Amino acid sequence: MPVNQITIIGTGHIGGSFALGLRSGGFRGGIVGCDRPEVLEVAQARGAIDSGISEPQTAIRGSDVVLLATPIGAIIDMIERIGPLLPPESLLTDTGSTKLQIAERARAVFGQDAGRRFLPGHPMAGKERSGIEEAAPDLFRGAYWIFTPLEAQLDARAREYMELVETTGAQSVTMDAVRHDKVCAWTSHLPQMVATALGSVLLEELGDDSQALGLKSRGLREMTRTAASPYSVWRDIALTNSANLQPALLRLEQHLANLRENLKTRELEQEFEKANEMRRRLERSSQ
Amino acid sequence: MPVNQITIIGTGHIGGSFALGLRSGGFRGGIVGCDRPEVLEVAQARGAIDSGISEPQTAIRGSDVVLLATPIGAIIDMIERIGPLLPPESLLTDTGSTKLQIAERARAVFGQDAGRRFLPGHPMAGKERSGIEEAAPDLFRGAYWIFTPLEAQLDARAREYMELVETTGAQSVTMDAVRHDKVCAWTSHLPQMVATALGSVLLEELGDDSQALGLKSRGLREMTRTAASPYSVWRDIALTNSANLQPALLRLEQHLANLRENLKTRELEQEFEKANEMRRRLERSSQ
Repeated sequence: MPVNQITIIGTGHIGGSFALGLRSGGFRGGIVGCDRPEVLEVAQARGAIDSGISEPQTAIRGSDVVLLATPIGAIIDMIERIGPLLPPESLLTDTGSTKLQIAERARAVFGQDAGRRFLPGHPMAGKERSGIEEAAPDLFRGAYWIFTPLEAQLDARAREYMELVETTGAQSVTMDAVRHDKVCAWTSHLPQMVATALGSVLLEELGDDSQALGLKSRGLREMTRTAASPYSVWRDIALTNSANLQPALLRLEQHLANLRENLKTRELEQEFEKANEMRRRLERSSQ
Repeated sequence: MPVNQITIIGTGHIGGSFALGLRSGGFRGGIVGCDRPEVLEVAQARGAIDSGISEPQTAIRGSDVVLLATPIGAIIDMIERIGPLLPPESLLTDTGSTKLQIAERARAVFGQDAGRRFLPGHPMAGKERSGIEEAAPDLFRGAYWIFTPLEAQLDARAREYMELVETTGAQSVTMDAVRHDKVCAWTSHLPQMVATALGSVLLEELGDDSQALGLKSRGLREMTRTAASPYSVWRDIALTNSANLQPALLRLEQHLANLRENLKTRELEQEFEKANEMRRRLERSSQ
């Protein structure tokens, strides 16, 4: 039973790129988009979707897979809203950047069938952008798409969907939702908050100093690239992963305070050595 | 009176790249390197220098310009050690990443002649690397080379040297030393310390988790690229600019604490909006 039709609820940057990626990966089934009419118009003009329907209850009809690609809060609401309307043979899945609260809502809605009917997913790409305008078919090429299945055993529909995901160039990885949220707090959410804090304090300090901003410090540009990330995407990540993000932020603050108090001592060398070692391990692991 | 010979004390990544940049920019005069014998050997093999002499007092003989391209502490020592040996018509200059303490030492050594005999300089490039091995002729192409002259009026020798610097592709900028050190604390030294702290805390938390490190989070890789920066370069920057760097670090810590305490409130939106605005201004100013 191949996937003949997929509905993508939220055809913005992530959902739109996934649709374009499916097309360029050779997917021949139907793609129904669900979003505000003006977004659907662009998605259709770009060839991402075959048809657009703004009403979720209608948009999901006849689809073998329904992908929720909205901010996390809307994903959680939508599981509750459309979950009960989906036939049991359809798979509901999502692209939310945190997984535990989403998984909990799916368990509450689907009960014992949750493992078969809902597959939590998280593509690790594109969180610094939003909007269908910049959606791209190769957004997921080379990226990891993490799945945190509610049960160890995946059924045929879930496996088919994972194969579809890989046709966009993404590599699927499976992990436990608790571990996912913790790892992402450190590797993704903490770096984002640091870029945001750095951008914010630099605006206060140098915002009107065009000569200073124009010096093109590579470190500065690089360390604040994701400071352009939209609050609309990050609000729900912060909200649903604060339990992991709060202690991570606190630990970083302690390291910064330790650096600040030791700018003139050899303690500074130890921090540099640890950072150097981290970077070596990161480079080794990405080879 | 063109520059017929230049001595570069410290022919590592910065000094070596400058020598290579001078050559590829068409400089026809002599280049004398001064460093440890094994460094000079590589510098000579790479065509960066015509001759290498490990003894500074000897290496400076006959040069119209002497460039100090060592870590800041050694620059300060060297001003004291070789400054009095230089003939009055030679220019002493440097590449140190902080300028105030260097300028103060030059004033102490050269007295009333300091403005004519010493030109403080800072190329904004390459601080994340060290060593002649990776030196490159285009390191300064498109980069700013900041000068913080001790007097408003530059004499002919200083102007000639600045023209030589621009033959490497660098763009010269003039600024007051106090302002330089403050601006660099925010745009360069603070981002470095953040990358170092982030690298250090991530080693503690995820250092042995190869799956997590292998997830190739773009934000993580980008935010820790300069975590590979060597302590040998940054020790003296931290030491000589702690007066500006300490309050900058403290302000960032306060912003991070504010984010941490407001992960679930609208205060978070304000931080994102400020960071977004900073990024817009940075992009406008670098066009």
